[in-house]
Amino acid sequence: MKTRAAVATQAGKPLEIMDVNLDGPKAGEVLVEVKATGICHTDEFTLSGADPEGLFPAILGHEGAGVVMEVGEGVTSLKPGDHVIPLYTPECRECYSCTSQKTNLCTSIRGTQGQGVMPDGTSRFSTLDGDPILHYMGCSTFSNHTVLPEIALAKVREDAPFDKICYIGCGVTTGIGAVINTAKVEVGSSAIVFGLGGIGLNVIQGLRLAGADMIVGVDLNNSKKQMAEKFGMTHFVNPNEVEGDLLPYLLDITKRPGDAFGGADYTFDATGNVGVMRTALEAAHRGWGESIIIGVAPAGAEIATRPFQLVTGRVWKGTAFGGARGRTDVPKIVDWYMDGKIEIDPMITHTMGLDDINKGFDLMHAGESIRSVVTY
Amino acid sequence: MKTRAAVATQAGKPLEIMDVNLDGPKAGEVLVEVKATGICHTDEFTLSGADPEGLFPAILGHEGAGVVMEVGEGVTSLKPGDHVIPLYTPECRECYSCTSQKTNLCTSIRGTQGQGVMPDGTSRFSTLDGDPILHYMGCSTFSNHTVLPEIALAKVREDAPFDKICYIGCGVTTGIGAVINTAKVEVGSSAIVFGLGGIGLNVIQGLRLAGADMIVGVDLNNSKKQMAEKFGMTHFVNPNEVEGDLLPYLLDITKRPGDAFGGADYTFDATGNVGVMRTALEAAHRGWGESIIIGVAPAGAEIATRPFQLVTGRVWKGTAFGGARGRTDVPKIVDWYMDGKIEIDPMITHTMGLDDINKGFDLMHAGESIRSVVTY
Repeated sequence: MKTRAAVATQAGKPLEIMDVNLDGPKAGEVLVEVKATGICHTDEFTLSGADPEGLFPAILGHEGAGVVMEVGEGVTSLKPGDHVIPLYTPECRECYSCTSQKTNLCTSIRGTQGQGVMPDGTSRFSTLDGDPILHYMGCSTFSNHTVLPEIALAKVREDAPFDKICYIGCGVTTGIGAVINTAKVEVGSSAIVFGLGGIGLNVIQGLRLAGADMIVGVDLNNSKKQMAEKFGMTHFVNPNEVEGDLLPYLLDITKRPGDAFGGADYTFDATGNVGVMRTALEAAHRGWGESIIIGVAPAGAEIATRPFQLVTGRVWKGTAFGGARGRTDVPKIVDWYMDGKIEIDPMITHTMGLDDINKGFDLMHAGESIRSVVTY
Repeated sequence: MKTRAAVATQAGKPLEIMDVNLDGPKAGEVLVEVKATGICHTDEFTLSGADPEGLFPAILGHEGAGVVMEVGEGVTSLKPGDHVIPLYTPECRECYSCTSQKTNLCTSIRGTQGQGVMPDGTSRFSTLDGDPILHYMGCSTFSNHTVLPEIALAKVREDAPFDKICYIGCGVTTGIGAVINTAKVEVGSSAIVFGLGGIGLNVIQGLRLAGADMIVGVDLNNSKKQMAEKFGMTHFVNPNEVEGDLLPYLLDITKRPGDAFGGADYTFDATGNVGVMRTALEAAHRGWGESIIIGVAPAGAEIATRPFQLVTGRVWKGTAFGGARGRTDVPKIVDWYMDGKIEIDPMITHTMGLDDINKGFDLMHAGESIRSVVTY
């Protein structure tokens, strides 16, 4: 079939909107009509050329929602008409990783996904001239229609609006999941969130959901304060407005009665800056504080600290897709949204058609959007 | 009273054996006759001058066992005749840290202990001329008699031999505790232990106790193999004898059927080398592997890695005194020794009188001892 897509033809160039060919689903695959897709920093990371593993030409986009149109041979868990969210972290429930029950990082199709192809080693996308176009993160939601493996689709309720729940395909789940799956934050905890962009806001609402007492947000931009408070932030810190160093300031404001040290029970980096990651670790409480890295650092960047920080009880962790097992957890998060336990609407600051997708990237660069969503 | 002690008069000099004055216990303190003390690398670290927080003159030693001779005002949990192990990590059960129930790092007397004095800010030790001599790690077991706070003494059974259980005051508890308290290793786990000195051997027997399946030991010295096997090591790796890089080799040998990645469920650094700490982290299994830092790094040294290592599910931790709450856990470990669940005797390779204590340091430098114990 023919469909319309935004194609990343080469690094550093705007996406090109064009008709492309899409082959139907092979065995174990599913054809999905994408109804909406978010534009995420990870798409930008790849498009810019900064991602050393980025491949071109490709159809980017990994934060979508849509409807099943056709299923390939052997597909049993989905049927045409089902509403789905594509999963860049699939959940096969059969590989060594899935059956360990200790990680969400399913590895059954990791190799081919990284190469921009379906599990059989080929792409379903091509130009009208017949030249192959690669898939991206196994999703390619910047195309009105796409093909995915069955194990990379979460079936969700049909009354949920596509233009909101698409955000659950990455940002919402990453932020909330970091709190509830990776950190496993307990009621009454204190926390510091570094970076109040889309991920940071979702960490904050995850902390509110988990019953944290003190939720400190750290950002260089004061305009982030109001929105973060709306999602549950209790204290705002702009490092540029702190007298002296940031770390002792954070340790001081997180001191509870009788506590000589200070530091939060949990800290989260949602900046991707390795210097901030260090501050986040060191702002975790001596003895038990855990720091969770969510942000994606530039290629080659390294984190560092004195081992004493860990020997005295801090724990350094990271999270991918919020530790969520997509087919199991994503439908629950859609329920939480529909039940009003979490909010998404205020974070979708801009909506546009596919033809205007490059404006979504412009808004991201300008720091004007939290999330732009493309609707088809 | 007068007692005999090995005094560290200045950094880099041998200990001087001499008579010293010891004041009796003040309120909340206990006078202990030390019966035996191990010589630990931490004593050497301070004596050498490498420890930036080292103070002189002081009476070192922190790995002892002895008998209570006299108790100060208000001491209720101990009486003369009780057998005790001094605790450089006390357990007051009342401070913010202890009542958190999330850490063993009691902070009630941390400030004065670091300054080499008792909680009232003064030292009980002095030269025969009346010049003060500092305490060390709150213990000073290189003196035949010493004074400690009540909260820094674990009461242990009276049939346990002092010259063996003194090692529980540091090395045994640190190694075994890293496994059972910090890593919480489950039956059937795989593990890699870097460094097969005294701590590493105790990590290995902790892993055996916890029911680990595969226990890999890594050391540059082949002579460590036999003893480590006796304590439960199942595989030995000498990095100098590995073709190619160590990390891929370790990932390969820890692969289980169906596992594409390899890596151990738990890794432990018992070397204090920050490069080894990085290898230990990266040799932990993708998705869930935890790496625990036990070794003490040189002043100013930093650990580093790419954040991707954490984002893909590895966890970086550290441990101090094996996460053990001394008064609660040390008596249990003494029981385990007496019941034959753990071994100590083969690790006590040398025993000597106080007059020969500097020979114990020489044996350590020469790599000839696992543990030297001074008996009084």
